[in-house]
Amino acid sequence: MSALEQLIEALRRLPGVGQKSAQRMAYHLLQHDREGAQRLSAALAAAAQQVQHCQRCHTFSEAALCPVCLDATRDAKLLCVVETPADQAALERTGSYRGYYFVLQGRVSPLDGISTKDIGVAELLERASDGLVEEVILATSFTAEGEATAHVVGEVLRARGLRSTRLARGVPVGSELEYVDLGTIAHALVDRR
Amino acid sequence: MSALEQLIEALRRLPGVGQKSAQRMAYHLLQHDREGAQRLSAALAAAAQQVQHCQRCHTFSEAALCPVCLDATRDAKLLCVVETPADQAALERTGSYRGYYFVLQGRVSPLDGISTKDIGVAELLERASDGLVEEVILATSFTAEGEATAHVVGEVLRARGLRSTRLARGVPVGSELEYVDLGTIAHALVDRR
Repeated sequence: MSALEQLIEALRRLPGVGQKSAQRMAYHLLQHDREGAQRLSAALAAAAQQVQHCQRCHTFSEAALCPVCLDATRDAKLLCVVETPADQAALERTGSYRGYYFVLQGRVSPLDGISTKDIGVAELLERASDGLVEEVILATSFTAEGEATAHVVGEVLRARGLRSTRLARGVPVGSELEYVDLGTIAHALVDRR
Repeated sequence: MSALEQLIEALRRLPGVGQKSAQRMAYHLLQHDREGAQRLSAALAAAAQQVQHCQRCHTFSEAALCPVCLDATRDAKLLCVVETPADQAALERTGSYRGYYFVLQGRVSPLDGISTKDIGVAELLERASDGLVEEVILATSFTAEGEATAHVVGEVLRARGLRSTRLARGVPVGSELEYVDLGTIAHALVDRR
């Protein structure tokens, strides 16, 4: 396989990139942006080597502890549980949460043989039992698997006497009711305030 | 800027990749496919270093001459002019052309100050004047700039006494007439055979 074909093959492994996009990217980089290719190569190698997981909350971090865990001004009574570092980053960008996080390793999925053991619920229990945490906010996805994860994690926490809450379900901001799916409207009705 | 942010920044330079896709790619690579990240890094570095331009037709090649130019069984009477190595690869994949190629460095674009000098028309003239080429097929894009390029290149070739042809314009294979744009239908009518 030529270097060009190998590059196309490697680009195809990126999420959302098929054969045509990979070809386009490879030709673009070689024809118009060799410096960009070098930079991306270096950035990938550096990130793969330097980015580890925070020892406390398991999000991506280049140091042993991530900046959020190191921030002593945060509210230690709140612990927010998410599925991935990307979810944690999204919550952080909202700027409306001042507690700490715990990042699971994905979600439970019985069909794929992924149970609570595999996603780090034991570590979460240990983290939540530090004597400071008063409320664990379950911010897993609102998909079938995310809901199942929130359910089992909530049960495990309750067995330990820890209080858990779930993100509110409801109508997304900016949406017209007519176009919102019925399940969401039903939930918004039940959870009205 | 952290290694993760640098990676997202570098991924954003890929064509068709915005902030959100770049984030998704970076998180995916770090969370699920570090081996893919290493492989992509290596493939980029290798391609940027090894992939050069064929000295004869200027398409991408890892050797001084590309496999097509080295293929002595091709028809030396035909020379097909394209804008980019990607266009050359597309034509080659059709399997219906047995001549040689010449890859321009893009297309003329007076608004961007890109003239025939910048896209290598002098080299094309030299290549087409080898005494063997009898027909130069202009396979530039059917955009305003591609048409302009075909026009000026055709003029230059004619001044040298070289015959040039243009790819046929017409209705794309597999399309329903109702949905084909009117300019295309008009051309297909004029060029009917």
